[in-house]
Amino acid sequence: MIEDRIKDIELRKKITTAENAALFIKNGMTIATSGFTPSGYPKATPLALSKRIKNNNENIKITLITGASVGDELDGELARNNITKKRIPYQTNDSCRKAINNGDIQFCDVHLSLLPQYINYNYLEDIDIGIVEASEITENGCMIPTTSVGITPTIVKKAKKLIIEINTSQPIDLRGIHDIYTLPNPPKRTPIPILNCKDRIGTNYIQIDKNKIIAIVFTDIRDDVKKLAEPNKDSNLMAEIFLEFLDHEIKAGRIPRKLLPFQSGVGSVSNSILNGFSRSKYDKLQFYSEVIQDSMLDLIDIGKVQIASGTAISPSPEGLNKFYDDIKRYKSKIILRPQEISNNPEIIRRLGVIAMNTAIEVDIYGNVNSSNIMGGNLMNGIGGSGDFARNAYLSVFFTKSTAKNETISTVVPLVSHVDHTEHDVNIIITEQGIADLRGLSPKERAISIINNCANPIYKDLLSDYLKEAMKSKKNIPILLNRAFKCFESLEKTDTMKRGNIVYYANLINRKGDDYEEKSK
Amino acid sequence: MIEDRIKDIELRKKITTAENAALFIKNGMTIATSGFTPSGYPKATPLALSKRIKNNNENIKITLITGASVGDELDGELARNNITKKRIPYQTNDSCRKAINNGDIQFCDVHLSLLPQYINYNYLEDIDIGIVEASEITENGCMIPTTSVGITPTIVKKAKKLIIEINTSQPIDLRGIHDIYTLPNPPKRTPIPILNCKDRIGTNYIQIDKNKIIAIVFTDIRDDVKKLAEPNKDSNLMAEIFLEFLDHEIKAGRIPRKLLPFQSGVGSVSNSILNGFSRSKYDKLQFYSEVIQDSMLDLIDIGKVQIASGTAISPSPEGLNKFYDDIKRYKSKIILRPQEISNNPEIIRRLGVIAMNTAIEVDIYGNVNSSNIMGGNLMNGIGGSGDFARNAYLSVFFTKSTAKNETISTVVPLVSHVDHTEHDVNIIITEQGIADLRGLSPKERAISIINNCANPIYKDLLSDYLKEAMKSKKNIPILLNRAFKCFESLEKTDTMKRGNIVYYANLINRKGDDYEEKSK
Repeated sequence: MIEDRIKDIELRKKITTAENAALFIKNGMTIATSGFTPSGYPKATPLALSKRIKNNNENIKITLITGASVGDELDGELARNNITKKRIPYQTNDSCRKAINNGDIQFCDVHLSLLPQYINYNYLEDIDIGIVEASEITENGCMIPTTSVGITPTIVKKAKKLIIEINTSQPIDLRGIHDIYTLPNPPKRTPIPILNCKDRIGTNYIQIDKNKIIAIVFTDIRDDVKKLAEPNKDSNLMAEIFLEFLDHEIKAGRIPRKLLPFQSGVGSVSNSILNGFSRSKYDKLQFYSEVIQDSMLDLIDIGKVQIASGTAISPSPEGLNKFYDDIKRYKSKIILRPQEISNNPEIIRRLGVIAMNTAIEVDIYGNVNSSNIMGGNLMNGIGGSGDFARNAYLSVFFTKSTAKNETISTVVPLVSHVDHTEHDVNIIITEQGIADLRGLSPKERAISIINNCANPIYKDLLSDYLKEAMKSKKNIPILLNRAFKCFESLEKTDTMKRGNIVYYANLINRKGDDYEEKSK
Repeated sequence: MIEDRIKDIELRKKITTAENAALFIKNGMTIATSGFTPSGYPKATPLALSKRIKNNNENIKITLITGASVGDELDGELARNNITKKRIPYQTNDSCRKAINNGDIQFCDVHLSLLPQYINYNYLEDIDIGIVEASEITENGCMIPTTSVGITPTIVKKAKKLIIEINTSQPIDLRGIHDIYTLPNPPKRTPIPILNCKDRIGTNYIQIDKNKIIAIVFTDIRDDVKKLAEPNKDSNLMAEIFLEFLDHEIKAGRIPRKLLPFQSGVGSVSNSILNGFSRSKYDKLQFYSEVIQDSMLDLIDIGKVQIASGTAISPSPEGLNKFYDDIKRYKSKIILRPQEISNNPEIIRRLGVIAMNTAIEVDIYGNVNSSNIMGGNLMNGIGGSGDFARNAYLSVFFTKSTAKNETISTVVPLVSHVDHTEHDVNIIITEQGIADLRGLSPKERAISIINNCANPIYKDLLSDYLKEAMKSKKNIPILLNRAFKCFESLEKTDTMKRGNIVYYANLINRKGDDYEEKSK
């Protein structure tokens, strides 16, 4: 086992227990780890750390930097034991989220493509210890990452000390799936030579300064990947609308007949959209994305995928089994890159990636909230959505038109938090329909979004608001004193529906100008 | 004269009057023109068009697409005569702005780097006629642009018909200053081979399909460039703060000793900041920017500039004279590129551009409003600020801490319109000081911005708001029902100052938790 996993004989001397490795972690340290989605993050060391803290009642506070979200063994355990004091750049863990919203953890939300360079530019705290998961250490002391690459190459370069977790649940056959290419700091950068999703430009290992390694830990804890919700009527409807739109765009000459690479956000809705492709006429699909999900594996199975490039593979538990069982076949269709490459604006704009992301809420002007509910309650973070939306050939956002049993309209007068501005949103799709915002003014956008995307339950409210706002003689028809009333209503009456509270407020004058006439 | 300016003999037959050229413009057309800032835009044809409309009481409505803002002969004349029905992507003209805010013109605000590809992808209306200013038509029927490049190469390629204005006020010696390189549509794009601000990668002319040319018009109307406000105490203070910060960053190893290229927004404040460099120890400055302004010419004069790359030269009237008088010398230090290259994310991120832009207002969370006052009154548009801020090595925003005789705080609880989100703003500088937001959580950012950037007159109000918001137990300390109260106060009492109206609203509990303690 050890012989298979650590081929560099000298390094075998560094093998120790997770408990011993965790002892290196001291109060006040900045710890950076591998991991992107609950894939490829260290598990044994953080578990040992939190166990120690729990048992000894120690007071240890650290800053935790990862590629993106990680599993509960890391984010959950550390948050529940009050170990994390600052968290960068993204998370999806219940305990961690709760601690952030409580104010117990300071959260710094960063575009995922920018994080590696923020570390390289010394913008963040120095990394005292890096903890990275590997499937193998090669003859020359290089590491093979596992199910994600994320910021691992950056950690290995910049951390003062390194703990490596060899995870034996990760197949040794992962070797070859990665393509490690990192960027020097300006002014030494040169073009990134990716001209096609399938281009491999780097190595399949990460070079390590062996002197930095303070511990190697063996573990067999599997990636804590999540089950996805089944596609439902609404997500299937959105997929259909999107595919119909694709047809239309191709016919209009706005998208090439052979399509362009797709990026797809993470989660159930995105997964459903991709599922839609399996029922479509399209094949030879290319993905230049972040995360390889179940639907991409399924599309590979039916021969519809040319290449899926990302920074992590993070399917459901069943999907992960399927991937492990047939890894050699999948490996020929999958490339895992560092997130500074998977999410790089240069490549996204060059390849002409069609970006598909989900929104928490959209407003009638075309702004999108991806991260904070009611203006400040963190859900997950902006993640990579900004990297893609801003540089995409076409930037598409999906959201169901209502939430929480129709008590919430996800189409609101003004989003309570802006992650993607009106300038970065081309298309909005709900189960109600599609708003194509390209070339439209704020007034035209508002009408299109209300007419096409809002739920019928909320259409009147939004129209009344807009009608009143149109009277204000502004470029953007907005009423600052009423724009957030829907959230007030929600807070006080548990619904955004009309009647419970002065909602889009005092709209007594219903005989005003008809906004639809004005918009011609 | 004609012989000098039109070397292609065949094309001389197309010479006609501006009046005749303007006759080609019909109701419902989409017209795209050269021009970026009041530089290099067509003047005679739009003047002739508006004169005709005025005299004949004709009803002609067009969509007008330009590189960015243009002069009054175009934007002003067409707006005042109700000719413009839709305007894309940016403007700075009083009459045009008024018509947009009135609802007479529909305005579509687009990132300047995206506009050329939106045209190439057929996302916008087809261009019926392109009107472009040239200093010269070469032997082979190619055109030499004048003081801006902007979207001219895209117009020449995509417009169905072309009108060329030969402007004899533009020196024939402009030839050689331009570097024309355009991008094919995906999937045919390859890396843009700029590794250094000084790299020339294209031609110094724009190829034209001669069959498209329907008229060539001669004019000698000069670029309607604007006088800049003199640097004042506040802008000088901001320059000093920025230069001190640069020193500090270099010492800390976060910016290379030889500096990196700078981008500078347009206008008086930006000009003052650049002026600061003349008094600094820094030389061999490089600019990878949009607009070459007076301060850059001055820096060239004192030998401090290696290269200034942009898409337009737009100094004051005196600056323009200076440039014309010594064009051969300046030409060796200036490159004018298409805006899809000057503002390209690929190059900006590769070169590590330090982006310096101005804000209309900033909020305590780090969001920036660059475009719309009171949420909807358009000032100019987002312009290129987003292209740079999002891809910069370091994204810096400048604003004086108050406006309109201190009745307005430019640091507000929540910006009334978001152009740059918290994720894209590293540094905020006012005359009061500097907030370094890198690696900070929303709460930490709020404290830093209030303490360092807000004007003392408004500090208490902002602190009280924040203190109250901190109680809400959110990742982002926000009170949606109070966040816009300052704008309500401004609207009703002409000031954001406390006392006139319930401002940051009902902050009766002044004995709450001290937010400063909490932020440790």
